[in-house]
Amino acid sequence: MAEGRRLFAPELPRDGGVLRLPVESARHAQVLRLRVGDRVRLFDAAGSEADAEILDVARDAMSCRAEAPRSVPERTRRVTLLLGVPKAPKLETIVRMMTELGVHALCFVLTERSVPKLAHDSPKLERCKRIAREACAQSGQARALEIHGPEELALVAARAPADAARVVFWENATQTLDAAFASVAAAEDLHDVWAVVGPEGGLSAAEIDQLTPLGYQQVGLGEGILRVDTAAVVASALLLDRMHALG
Amino acid sequence: MAEGRRLFAPELPRDGGVLRLPVESARHAQVLRLRVGDRVRLFDAAGSEADAEILDVARDAMSCRAEAPRSVPERTRRVTLLLGVPKAPKLETIVRMMTELGVHALCFVLTERSVPKLAHDSPKLERCKRIAREACAQSGQARALEIHGPEELALVAARAPADAARVVFWENATQTLDAAFASVAAAEDLHDVWAVVGPEGGLSAAEIDQLTPLGYQQVGLGEGILRVDTAAVVASALLLDRMHALG
Repeated sequence: MAEGRRLFAPELPRDGGVLRLPVESARHAQVLRLRVGDRVRLFDAAGSEADAEILDVARDAMSCRAEAPRSVPERTRRVTLLLGVPKAPKLETIVRMMTELGVHALCFVLTERSVPKLAHDSPKLERCKRIAREACAQSGQARALEIHGPEELALVAARAPADAARVVFWENATQTLDAAFASVAAAEDLHDVWAVVGPEGGLSAAEIDQLTPLGYQQVGLGEGILRVDTAAVVASALLLDRMHALG
Repeated sequence: MAEGRRLFAPELPRDGGVLRLPVESARHAQVLRLRVGDRVRLFDAAGSEADAEILDVARDAMSCRAEAPRSVPERTRRVTLLLGVPKAPKLETIVRMMTELGVHALCFVLTERSVPKLAHDSPKLERCKRIAREACAQSGQARALEIHGPEELALVAARAPADAARVVFWENATQTLDAAFASVAAAEDLHDVWAVVGPEGGLSAAEIDQLTPLGYQQVGLGEGILRVDTAAVVASALLLDRMHALG
């Protein structure tokens, strides 16, 4: 079965059976030109998937007969990115690209210089989750990027597991990623990385001072000034690369 | 002077003097809230820059008194990316992010599975060049990304200088970037890299067969299916990283 024929199903029946899929999946099925009788793979974006056959497909609704779901293995290399809230038009690109790359989680954080607002109950957050599911379906990643609503930077940063490597990408830093990791663990042992990327206005020196005692090492990202979406995607790619989860 | 106060000037007078800037620079000056008397740095996106003072600034026009221009050093690490023509909405993100990263050149290439059209005289190409200049102004990169209109993949690929390392990112490849480079040169000696990234539909096996005798080594980019914009940006970042031009 082509990897592209993956559809989101929020709940997979434990023993399989007939189920209706949400509107977003019906629309995705239209884009893929799927028809009654086609085989698809359903995924719940939370670690389960099931093979299924399309029973009915219309513009805004579809149904399938699903087999019993199986668990998708947990990611063995996890990148969690803490990101200053970006402007709305950049959100979609960031979420899509990070999902395609296989990043584990994106936590929006509130910082001194964060300008865009993003409330916990913002429709923007729901939209981000939908984009992550769509990108998950299309990229063949078994798990969608987890998206967590905004909280204070220091609060979220303090939640990194004890054995996670921690870095903060900062324009004033000169240390390389390799130097930062060399002092923490061999590449083979890098399973869990937490990384901070600031908002458009950058992180303040006071914020860096808060992160240092929490174990976050400062790392530079070259001499150019990267916009927040570029920085988020490039940081994700370099971290996954160092964990041998890319290439 | 803040790095952000950079404005595009297509021609810098050899001995300095008064000059008018194009509309795009006047608009950029408005965004930066620049006023008469402010000091700025003018750049021609082709290797020269000059300090200047604003004499007059209005909605669609502005003039400056420029000092004599100086040459910006050539890039010592050059990445040239050959990219299957992407869909229009992705062009802007690709050009902007690659400029911010400091990629040397983007050559659009025509491939078997290229769907979007892009003529040599397309206004899309002019728009790409403008986006590259704007991103150049904002990112502090001294040189804008060079953008070359579409030609056949094999024609462009054959133009790589003799001492350039050559890779093609391909979904069916399993070789890592490090393995590909290890057989070519030590990282310190990587000054010039030519890389191919396919269009949305991917490169065909026949195209890979054309690239192999030209010295392009196949490299994978992880297990996820990356969209063309993600692949272009991630490939650029990883190549610059290996050349120690990032981080």
